[in-house]
Amino acid sequence: MIPPAGASGFVLAIDIGGTKFAAGLVDASGQVLTAERVATPPGAKAHTLWKTLLTLIEPLVVNGPGLGVGVGCGGPMRWPEGVVSPLNMPGWRDFPLRAALAERFPGVPVRVHNDAICLAAAEHWRGAGQGVRDMLGMVVSTGVGGGLILGNRLVNGPTGNAGHIGHIIVDPDGPECGCGGRGCLEAVSRGPALAAWALGQGWTPGSSEPGHPEAEEASARQLAADAASGDEIAERAMTRAGHALGIAVASATHLCDLDLVTIGGGLSQAGPLLFTPLEEALRTHARMPFSRRLRVLPAALGQQAGLVGAAALILAPDRYWTAPV
Amino acid sequence: MIPPAGASGFVLAIDIGGTKFAAGLVDASGQVLTAERVATPPGAKAHTLWKTLLTLIEPLVVNGPGLGVGVGCGGPMRWPEGVVSPLNMPGWRDFPLRAALAERFPGVPVRVHNDAICLAAAEHWRGAGQGVRDMLGMVVSTGVGGGLILGNRLVNGPTGNAGHIGHIIVDPDGPECGCGGRGCLEAVSRGPALAAWALGQGWTPGSSEPGHPEAEEASARQLAADAASGDEIAERAMTRAGHALGIAVASATHLCDLDLVTIGGGLSQAGPLLFTPLEEALRTHARMPFSRRLRVLPAALGQQAGLVGAAALILAPDRYWTAPV
Repeated sequence: MIPPAGASGFVLAIDIGGTKFAAGLVDASGQVLTAERVATPPGAKAHTLWKTLLTLIEPLVVNGPGLGVGVGCGGPMRWPEGVVSPLNMPGWRDFPLRAALAERFPGVPVRVHNDAICLAAAEHWRGAGQGVRDMLGMVVSTGVGGGLILGNRLVNGPTGNAGHIGHIIVDPDGPECGCGGRGCLEAVSRGPALAAWALGQGWTPGSSEPGHPEAEEASARQLAADAASGDEIAERAMTRAGHALGIAVASATHLCDLDLVTIGGGLSQAGPLLFTPLEEALRTHARMPFSRRLRVLPAALGQQAGLVGAAALILAPDRYWTAPV
Repeated sequence: MIPPAGASGFVLAIDIGGTKFAAGLVDASGQVLTAERVATPPGAKAHTLWKTLLTLIEPLVVNGPGLGVGVGCGGPMRWPEGVVSPLNMPGWRDFPLRAALAERFPGVPVRVHNDAICLAAAEHWRGAGQGVRDMLGMVVSTGVGGGLILGNRLVNGPTGNAGHIGHIIVDPDGPECGCGGRGCLEAVSRGPALAAWALGQGWTPGSSEPGHPEAEEASARQLAADAASGDEIAERAMTRAGHALGIAVASATHLCDLDLVTIGGGLSQAGPLLFTPLEEALRTHARMPFSRRLRVLPAALGQQAGLVGAAALILAPDRYWTAPV
């Protein structure tokens, strides 16, 4: 549903990632009124990426962008300037996404933040973290990221990079990480790292669906499916990921005195296969009286969480857009 | 110097620890006008501890406590109530320190916070962190603690326990920690743990001062002295502590996007013996572009830092006393 001309109280929300672009209109209650998505053109140059985005959003804004434009985008980026260089989109290097959108939509605020931050804001605003004062919203998928909410407000940090729980060190002598470091949570628990580890242990992808060649992709999704069907190596891989997550969550709650951690992203769909070892490691390591209260919950918002969080940058700026002016 | 009757602009600051009680008058510039200290009576009951404190402070307040009373005290405590149960003072269990002081000093604010938090506030207010927006102030001594300053304000957390970097996990399979967990920074890098580790490796305390029997105490101070004199085992112990500190600092800066970490406490006196391996581990693990800017500095304030930080709770409450009302 497109709001009629002159309607207010809604925003244009955009979610930009390496696999898809999504855009939608979101109202003040956090409801996604309408949404569209398109696959990210692989290997595209800057101009093609921008045209793809415009083609996606123009049908949504026939009556204007409402109160403003909120954008979640893969990092890294220069923040709050919104000059983006998403890891999986080499066509955009120092692309002035915020400025380009501001030119297209003059007169309304345009705000760009990291996609993991937007997911955390979404869970706090309208998801599993509603009413919680201090929380970390995590996403465990191709990467491991997060956003930190302290005292009911998003913590940005001076460079907009607070919340990078994927680079808490869980195993100092562990695997090399894409960041150049070693033993980061992301290096252990990101989907591709898990699948690679399982392959190294002798995992045969698709063990749960013999005779289905399409199930033989060595993906984290397949790994979770095989683990759910009792594949022992796949189960051990999920346990390994869960333990690493529990260690990182224990460290985070000791440092930040958290009430809640939410976990979303593809791998969180594995349910108890991931959450049980996570809780086990967390309860082993988080023994201070104050840290025992921490709850860990699956993220409550689904695929549209990215749009909801991007909308929150505009619709609830007192909590989610505390950028230096 | 005791300010004259009717003078304002100063406060009564109190620093309560397992080895000593300190108290002083601190002016608005953070200057300690006068200070007294007394050894903590070992094994004393609640009433004796309270009388010891009163005896210490009464000569300071002949002309009143000034603008209020700020207190740093060993944890744990119920915060912001200031009901304290310092680990090393079994005589105080759920002792209502804030209420007792408020009864003695009616009409002025009385504020109690963790001693490590006060040290961090002191470094931010008047020490190595002046003008820095986002920092962690650490103390490495008998324990390992800290306080977190984000966006120029002390982060308390809902229970007043934010900043517990001593319980970031640096070695998941490492030594048991006093908190009940395993592999915490404190379990590796606190002074007594270091000394015990070195003894286990064959360290002979006082190797640097043969013939000085008083130098044969197996303390962290002695360990640092022996390391400085080239004792190889003592050097390895300091390296071990520094590496663990660097790993924890890397995790903290990834999560909180910090500009600065300050390190005080007895062990920080070891200088390069501690800071060089710390930097080495930090630069190995903190490779994200945003985390490379982090600086690590020795704390700038000396023995009186605890009093300065306690005073800050009263003199700069917009930054250091953001307790829920």
